[in-house]
Amino acid sequence: MPLPATARPDRAAVRAVLDAALTEGRSALTAPEAKRIADAYDIPVPAEALAECADEAVALADRIGFPVALKIVSPEIVHKTDAGGVRIGVTSHAEVRAAFTTIVANARRHDPAAAILGVQVQQMVPAGTEVIVGTVTDPTFGKIVAFGLGGVLVEVLKDITFRLAPASEDDALSMLDSIRAAEVLRGVRGGAAVDRTTLSHLIVGVSQLAADFPEIAEIDLNPVFASADGVMAADVRILLGGEPAAPRRSYSREEILTSMRRLMQPRSVAVIGASNEEGKIGNSVMKNLVAGGFPGDIHPVNRKADDILGRKAYKSVMDVPGEPDVAVFAIPAQFVAAALEEVGRKGIPNAVLIPSGFAETGEHALQDELVTIAERYGVRLLGPNIYGYYSTWHDLCATFCTPYDVRGGVALTSQSGGIGMAILGFARSTKTGVSAIVGLGNKSDLDEDDLLTWFGEDPNTQCIAMHLEDLKDGRAFVEAARATVPKKPVVVLKAGRTSAGAKAAGSHTGALAGDDAVYEDILKQAGVIRAPGLNEMLEYARALPVLPTPKGDNVVIITGAGGSGVLLSDAIVDNGLSLMEIPDDLDAAFKAFIPPFGAAGNPIDITGGEPPSTYEATIRLGLEDPRIHSLVLGYWHTIVTPPMVFAELTARVVAEFRARGIEKPVVASLAGDIEVEEACQYLFERGVVAYPYTTEKPVAALGAKYRWARAAGLLGGGT
Amino acid sequence: MPLPATARPDRAAVRAVLDAALTEGRSALTAPEAKRIADAYDIPVPAEALAECADEAVALADRIGFPVALKIVSPEIVHKTDAGGVRIGVTSHAEVRAAFTTIVANARRHDPAAAILGVQVQQMVPAGTEVIVGTVTDPTFGKIVAFGLGGVLVEVLKDITFRLAPASEDDALSMLDSIRAAEVLRGVRGGAAVDRTTLSHLIVGVSQLAADFPEIAEIDLNPVFASADGVMAADVRILLGGEPAAPRRSYSREEILTSMRRLMQPRSVAVIGASNEEGKIGNSVMKNLVAGGFPGDIHPVNRKADDILGRKAYKSVMDVPGEPDVAVFAIPAQFVAAALEEVGRKGIPNAVLIPSGFAETGEHALQDELVTIAERYGVRLLGPNIYGYYSTWHDLCATFCTPYDVRGGVALTSQSGGIGMAILGFARSTKTGVSAIVGLGNKSDLDEDDLLTWFGEDPNTQCIAMHLEDLKDGRAFVEAARATVPKKPVVVLKAGRTSAGAKAAGSHTGALAGDDAVYEDILKQAGVIRAPGLNEMLEYARALPVLPTPKGDNVVIITGAGGSGVLLSDAIVDNGLSLMEIPDDLDAAFKAFIPPFGAAGNPIDITGGEPPSTYEATIRLGLEDPRIHSLVLGYWHTIVTPPMVFAELTARVVAEFRARGIEKPVVASLAGDIEVEEACQYLFERGVVAYPYTTEKPVAALGAKYRWARAAGLLGGGT
Repeated sequence: MPLPATARPDRAAVRAVLDAALTEGRSALTAPEAKRIADAYDIPVPAEALAECADEAVALADRIGFPVALKIVSPEIVHKTDAGGVRIGVTSHAEVRAAFTTIVANARRHDPAAAILGVQVQQMVPAGTEVIVGTVTDPTFGKIVAFGLGGVLVEVLKDITFRLAPASEDDALSMLDSIRAAEVLRGVRGGAAVDRTTLSHLIVGVSQLAADFPEIAEIDLNPVFASADGVMAADVRILLGGEPAAPRRSYSREEILTSMRRLMQPRSVAVIGASNEEGKIGNSVMKNLVAGGFPGDIHPVNRKADDILGRKAYKSVMDVPGEPDVAVFAIPAQFVAAALEEVGRKGIPNAVLIPSGFAETGEHALQDELVTIAERYGVRLLGPNIYGYYSTWHDLCATFCTPYDVRGGVALTSQSGGIGMAILGFARSTKTGVSAIVGLGNKSDLDEDDLLTWFGEDPNTQCIAMHLEDLKDGRAFVEAARATVPKKPVVVLKAGRTSAGAKAAGSHTGALAGDDAVYEDILKQAGVIRAPGLNEMLEYARALPVLPTPKGDNVVIITGAGGSGVLLSDAIVDNGLSLMEIPDDLDAAFKAFIPPFGAAGNPIDITGGEPPSTYEATIRLGLEDPRIHSLVLGYWHTIVTPPMVFAELTARVVAEFRARGIEKPVVASLAGDIEVEEACQYLFERGVVAYPYTTEKPVAALGAKYRWARAAGLLGGGT
Repeated sequence: MPLPATARPDRAAVRAVLDAALTEGRSALTAPEAKRIADAYDIPVPAEALAECADEAVALADRIGFPVALKIVSPEIVHKTDAGGVRIGVTSHAEVRAAFTTIVANARRHDPAAAILGVQVQQMVPAGTEVIVGTVTDPTFGKIVAFGLGGVLVEVLKDITFRLAPASEDDALSMLDSIRAAEVLRGVRGGAAVDRTTLSHLIVGVSQLAADFPEIAEIDLNPVFASADGVMAADVRILLGGEPAAPRRSYSREEILTSMRRLMQPRSVAVIGASNEEGKIGNSVMKNLVAGGFPGDIHPVNRKADDILGRKAYKSVMDVPGEPDVAVFAIPAQFVAAALEEVGRKGIPNAVLIPSGFAETGEHALQDELVTIAERYGVRLLGPNIYGYYSTWHDLCATFCTPYDVRGGVALTSQSGGIGMAILGFARSTKTGVSAIVGLGNKSDLDEDDLLTWFGEDPNTQCIAMHLEDLKDGRAFVEAARATVPKKPVVVLKAGRTSAGAKAAGSHTGALAGDDAVYEDILKQAGVIRAPGLNEMLEYARALPVLPTPKGDNVVIITGAGGSGVLLSDAIVDNGLSLMEIPDDLDAAFKAFIPPFGAAGNPIDITGGEPPSTYEATIRLGLEDPRIHSLVLGYWHTIVTPPMVFAELTARVVAEFRARGIEKPVVASLAGDIEVEEACQYLFERGVVAYPYTTEKPVAALGAKYRWARAAGLLGGGT
């Protein structure tokens, strides 16, 4: 088998074309230049040549063979059609001559100052499905490759998908399936399917070209005609430009883990700006550290006081004994730099910068100064402009909020303080088991990828949930997410999804919010579970560590309320899950437990008036049969089976099977009077994700678990 | 100005064609027959005629003018292309001759038994945008008209919209805007816009044709070429068939209101099957009637007991004194018919049939018997297979569930008992003010349209929320909804939305679940607010009666947490709302209240550390300025402004403005520790729709209110 088309690109040829254009200060390549680059990367384009006069055009058309297309060539004219500079389907000498004259005249009229190099005479491309392949330079993710169907309709419907460049063959094939109109590529109503291998090669090649040459800002192959016989790009546009990002100090994985371990598992914490004065942040932080039961050393630093909350206070962090792991800052912005210098000299690896008054209020220089100091000493910065952080398994509450002590498996982070408070309140209200809550604020240094790297290794963390408004470095995040997802689920709430939201994000953080379609596709490519809203992020964070990982796709609904069964089925489809087709023997087994007018099949409707034994028998069967992988329960509050009776029997049966090594996700929707709330809490604390008054939430949690299991490669199927 | 094309259809011509086809027992019309019908309704189709031999085809082509299309004509061949029976763009005598011979041969090969009447020679249609116009007979809504863009791509993307037939000109115009690719019709990338008037005339005409002739099961104009110059249907398929629905006894609006008034505001209730025995339904119903405080007469009926719960019991309902308004049935299914006969003879207008064991368990005959008896006496039936009903303003709790007594503005109905219990629990947990909760169960008689008719008039009801799995009579529901929506919002949770859900609905109720796309469009056409899930239905039901009606589209976000502002902005767009562009003077006015590093614009970010006075000043300004129509508040829990301080000040300011006659919807998202839950409840009870730990729910409630206000014509814009 020959190597794929992209295996041996002629990089030198591309280099030469780019250098020539850049030397001339041009940002757009001419069509012949673009063709030379396409040829170097084996991107199939029509045979063509440049004609400088009508006679030459006629001769070229003869050589290429009729019909031909004619297109104006001018560095200044990028949109050739708009300039009247294109004629297609030209079939005779006379037409070639006429077309040459007309489009040159049109181009002159369109832009009298344009340098007209001639007219390109081009082979007409074979018929096929019109698609678009391109690359752009995204402010967050860098070079990304795009694929969609061509034509007016899809331009209108914006049916396009993105991946990081370079894309792998698998990435490229997944793009063909990711557009809504994917069916068209497979051939519909008698149309032939396109050659998927060739088309994905083309995507890979174009993405490689963009990745190989950072100075290529955009590539646009539009249209590409794809058919059963191959692909051909009818037009290739290449734009140059873009500034390389300023270099940042980078830390190795080992360095990140070492400093993060000391941040999240400290033995000694210094509080700079610790205070005895009620209402001051430095007072709240001290109290929370003490009240949270932190077993390590707490060293207050205060220029004026001798002791803070009964502990010896130091004038400077330099005077603190031992080697503190963390310095928590609770002093006004203008004093932070000087204190950070001392933290650096002291060799403290982590500075937690609670103060605000930096980039978020326009004080970029003040923040840049901190980063410079920190990079000099290798101090990692959390913040500034944050509420602090919690590390519950180490009884650490380094915040000015209130302590939180329900230890558990989810680590939560937020870019915004308000969202951090919502996390705290929700967690407390629902008794969510938490391993950490971390404020990221301005992200002057530590950001989501550092935290992912740590939490991926942290044995106390089973799930990571992150609220973010932007990513400083999209590629580093994707890399960290890819390394983490095979081990544990990563949930992301990306705020600023919509254009109105993105505008608000812009004014809030000064960050350039990326296009949401790009985030959507690339977060999915990274295996991240995206939460559509704040409440969903919180619910996923609560539920995912509780649910076992499903071992297959067969979901079964067992319901006492037929009405709940219908709504649960709706939710199954909404969440991309599938109801198991119940085999006859299993159907008969379920039928044996339920009244004759109940419905087996799936949902299994045990009907409303049934005693606890019917729920128990059917749940047992659902857990026992290895062909069933997940259970969705619909409970209906009746006098015969009250809520706590249902909760107790369900928790007991699930625990019994877990003790036998049979672990399946079980979620439940409880329809009933207010006693169902207590029953849901009871179930949740025993590993059954249960919600009152909603059929949507339990299935959404199950769906999130499945999305993760697929992304982690645990189910065989793709995402 | 000439009358629209559909003003004077030639119904007699259609009648003649249909009668001829029906006489021959055919369900498909031939192309010439379809053309005669199209001509009768001024549906533009190409000039054409039937050729019985090749010579005749050549002569016809000459008369029509080249190029022409040739199509096989055979009653048995419906899919002509599949049979090789179509040639287009035929340009010469020789080609016509060859095409005639070929397609006749193809047709014979395709179906040797087919009667071949000849070949249609047809004018080639002018270029244009391909669209599809058709009608189908929906099991729920009857004749409906469909519109979409033609071509493979839209077949794949299913971008199509439906309306009841006949459609008005406004309906038809709204269809052009309802498809996702609507922009294509307005002209994109230099393409000309289609003639909207002519295209909507065509839709109206086709829909009228389907409505005029019930025996037309389907009409399919595919493709129609629409351009700036007009429209032409290249192909017209018409299928006959379908059985008319069995006649039901129908009740006039006055009859419905009279019996519903006695049902919902009874003075005397008989309980058939009342019992002293704990755990029996007849015991629970009696207890609930008594414990609920029903001030009217409660008459137990029991064959064996002399008194029930200390009240005199009667052997038969015939013995009950006076004129009971309602008979509640709490006896086994097999005894219901005999008792209903007595209820009819007694002249009781309403029978509430709690028992199950009818259509839902396959006992259709038993249920049909009840309907026959009820129709004979004019007794209205609620149920069977229900939990009963509540009418809180009349202290009536005629159910076997537990009493509910928080009076308020929302009437809730459910088809399923489980969902009814979820309604009850949710309402109790959130203290939702309720006017009624009604179980509909098998809907043997009373259904959603009867209830809508009543609740539309009921002064205690400000909002109606309905869970349903099917509609017995979609048109009656639409009529009732249209009459109600201008007065009060109607929320519908249509279960069985997805194919999996619809399948479950089918097995649950024996109802044929309609296609969800049809429900979606026609419920919207009726002005109904569709809830995507159970929890949303419940939340809308709780929030809508609380929120004043907005007077315009300008929504302003005021937030203490920038992070909430971004998420609230996302939610604004998700819910089809728009953030107001703040005029300069208003921007300056807001800026005067907030710190210099806060952001005016919209969201207005007052920043996190602000005292209550900043919240108060900005909320006051938002309420005062008449250009602002709705406020979305983002609260961030801080020591400076604790949750209850925020709640109190917000409720106070809102109340003050309401007292001054300034009523605007105010919704709030509270981010904070668990004290925000109490603050949200406090706010909700004072007319501010507030939620903790979510930015989505408050905006979704506001969005639902806006959708209603638009549907009710209170905002000027369309839906």
